[in-house]
Amino acid sequence: MSRATMKWPWLAIVFVGGVCSAQTPGDFRPASTNVWGAQYPRVDGAGRVEIRVKAPDASAVKLNFWSGPKINMAKRSDGFWTVTTPPLVPGFHYYTLLIDGAEVSDPGSQGFFGGGRQASGVEIPEPGSTYYSIENVPHGQVRGVWYHSSVTETWRHALVYLPPAYDTALAARYPVLYLQHGAGEDETGWVRQGHADFILDNLIAAGACKPMIVVMAYGYARRPGQRPVDFMGKPLGSPEALKAMQDMESVFEDDVTQALIPYIDRTFRTLPDRNHRAMAGLSMGGMQTFQITLDHLDLFSYIGGFSGAGGMLVLAGGKLDPRTDYNGVFADPAAFAKRVHLLWLGVGTAEPPIMRNGLLRLHTSLDAAHIGHVFYQSPGTAHEWQTWRRDLKDFAPRLFR
Amino acid sequence: MSRATMKWPWLAIVFVGGVCSAQTPGDFRPASTNVWGAQYPRVDGAGRVEIRVKAPDASAVKLNFWSGPKINMAKRSDGFWTVTTPPLVPGFHYYTLLIDGAEVSDPGSQGFFGGGRQASGVEIPEPGSTYYSIENVPHGQVRGVWYHSSVTETWRHALVYLPPAYDTALAARYPVLYLQHGAGEDETGWVRQGHADFILDNLIAAGACKPMIVVMAYGYARRPGQRPVDFMGKPLGSPEALKAMQDMESVFEDDVTQALIPYIDRTFRTLPDRNHRAMAGLSMGGMQTFQITLDHLDLFSYIGGFSGAGGMLVLAGGKLDPRTDYNGVFADPAAFAKRVHLLWLGVGTAEPPIMRNGLLRLHTSLDAAHIGHVFYQSPGTAHEWQTWRRDLKDFAPRLFR
Repeated sequence: MSRATMKWPWLAIVFVGGVCSAQTPGDFRPASTNVWGAQYPRVDGAGRVEIRVKAPDASAVKLNFWSGPKINMAKRSDGFWTVTTPPLVPGFHYYTLLIDGAEVSDPGSQGFFGGGRQASGVEIPEPGSTYYSIENVPHGQVRGVWYHSSVTETWRHALVYLPPAYDTALAARYPVLYLQHGAGEDETGWVRQGHADFILDNLIAAGACKPMIVVMAYGYARRPGQRPVDFMGKPLGSPEALKAMQDMESVFEDDVTQALIPYIDRTFRTLPDRNHRAMAGLSMGGMQTFQITLDHLDLFSYIGGFSGAGGMLVLAGGKLDPRTDYNGVFADPAAFAKRVHLLWLGVGTAEPPIMRNGLLRLHTSLDAAHIGHVFYQSPGTAHEWQTWRRDLKDFAPRLFR
Repeated sequence: MSRATMKWPWLAIVFVGGVCSAQTPGDFRPASTNVWGAQYPRVDGAGRVEIRVKAPDASAVKLNFWSGPKINMAKRSDGFWTVTTPPLVPGFHYYTLLIDGAEVSDPGSQGFFGGGRQASGVEIPEPGSTYYSIENVPHGQVRGVWYHSSVTETWRHALVYLPPAYDTALAARYPVLYLQHGAGEDETGWVRQGHADFILDNLIAAGACKPMIVVMAYGYARRPGQRPVDFMGKPLGSPEALKAMQDMESVFEDDVTQALIPYIDRTFRTLPDRNHRAMAGLSMGGMQTFQITLDHLDLFSYIGGFSGAGGMLVLAGGKLDPRTDYNGVFADPAAFAKRVHLLWLGVGTAEPPIMRNGLLRLHTSLDAAHIGHVFYQSPGTAHEWQTWRRDLKDFAPRLFR
């Protein structure tokens, strides 16, 4: 499964003209996302990125920021190809290189799993933002755990963030947020691309959110003998794509409710009830969140959809029918409000129309149905990690109050 | 820093002619090291690997197993290039692709940090081996931790394996093994390439080794303002390379002894004394282990060098002078035996001569100096992870007895 086959329009333009600061040659520094010792990619104070790759025998090399146009790179006499981009908006940006038609990673970048592949990424600093940086505060630990799932009949890997005091306050029990990655990403995304651990560390240190456990699971699942579902090879919003995704979602739903939650509750000092259990996810993870939580309000009472929620409703232009959709949970606003402590939707103002309009439509549909919810819009950001970092920063403090 | 610039001869031939089993087309399955859903690379029962990559406009694509010769791939009419290798020896093998001279990763493979870059890897199953597989036994957890180092003045990341009972046997304290990666790898190598967590899980479950904490640190370090040390760009065994590596080692040594060990001992329920502290490492990590432990016998009493130990002695053809080398710790065999509970050396029988001969020379030098030690030879394996998995399997049960 290659990202090149994706038909998903996560393609808002990230190049911005408005960020102005004088470009000086000495202003470029190796990106924080580089591997040890790599001098390229380099980023300057304006958010420009300079890429360099050795491809002595290639006839064409292009830089492919997934959220912008492809840019031709120029060959130098020493066999290296280079380019400097216009300023990018702050945050984490996936990219690949196209070397004579082969879409590959940049050896100078760390690898990030996105688009169903190992991809490259570059972090553009956001001036003044420290909420997703490692700061001099107590740090939680991210634990890799393996649990056996009777649903998939496999061992599955998850990452679990434990708040800073977990190992010392041994009598304390904690609420749990299940936090899911997007399509083509995996359980490592929220830590490696999103810095969820630092976001939680900083919020907890500031007293802005409750100490909580955050479980980041691998969002793909299939039953024994089932073939991999190639939902990403189908056009976004098409009935085939949604059917394929929903087929997989139903397996993941069983895995979460029958294998993952019981494992987490017997392994960690959780508060194992619906009042202390939240779920959120980005993009595909938001759609999974909607399906899983609204099917299982016995298990969850806090719900977050980050640039993704409601599957067919958002992507296929459907309109919410509160009487019948989601088993009618939206039919009685008062009952819903009593049962669900938080319903939270977020979208970036620069997201592609299909996603932005879908979320807006869901938001207005929920308003029309008198379903209380939070609707957050991330200014100037697209379908990208900077949006989801901001989402988490707004969402987490509202949990378990 | 690109692996292409490495002059290190980790280049023993892994292709083997002796493994025979009938090749049947249906015998090929996606490798366990692939990303979700990727059908290529594929591996058959004989250890053959079939690689496929899309590069429609390339004029030459080569498969580059680091431990074997480069192999030309063949172009198909649909723009994909393919090749099927001869049988490879079981274990984990790094590889890259050369696309018109650009050395890049295979999008179908998970990314593994090796050779100073994100590289591809393929796992060839070893028939009958389960010691490094995930089995139905209690599993420990691998925790990602950040510690602040006053030596580098940075936050540094380490992975820490906690044995299965750590969270339930709350009165228990554990001995600690510090376990280091090789040059060009990082703190993730022992878990992702080596499966150290599964090796420990299985040994502990079988009662074959003591439950212990394993700390896997990031083996590069520089003082504030110091430039990155490009020791890998220099010829192996050259005085410049050894000088550059030793410069870095001295910083890492201070980091381990002044920042990492105190952090681990105040964060986890360790037995914080030399009798319960071991260090081992592979290749460069073995050289670091020798330097750090023999400089600090007040802190360590178990020492392991996996295909690497003793720096100059091993690589530059030097001979051990027990009276003066390593501050004279080898001058008095009886005193050494009393102080050091285990000195362990290992090397694969198929390693490159410089490494194999260096370890053999160190082994015979230690014998001549009457220094008791274990010398383990991994049959048929080269400077590769299969050697180091076997090393850990032999080494860990000897610790803390």
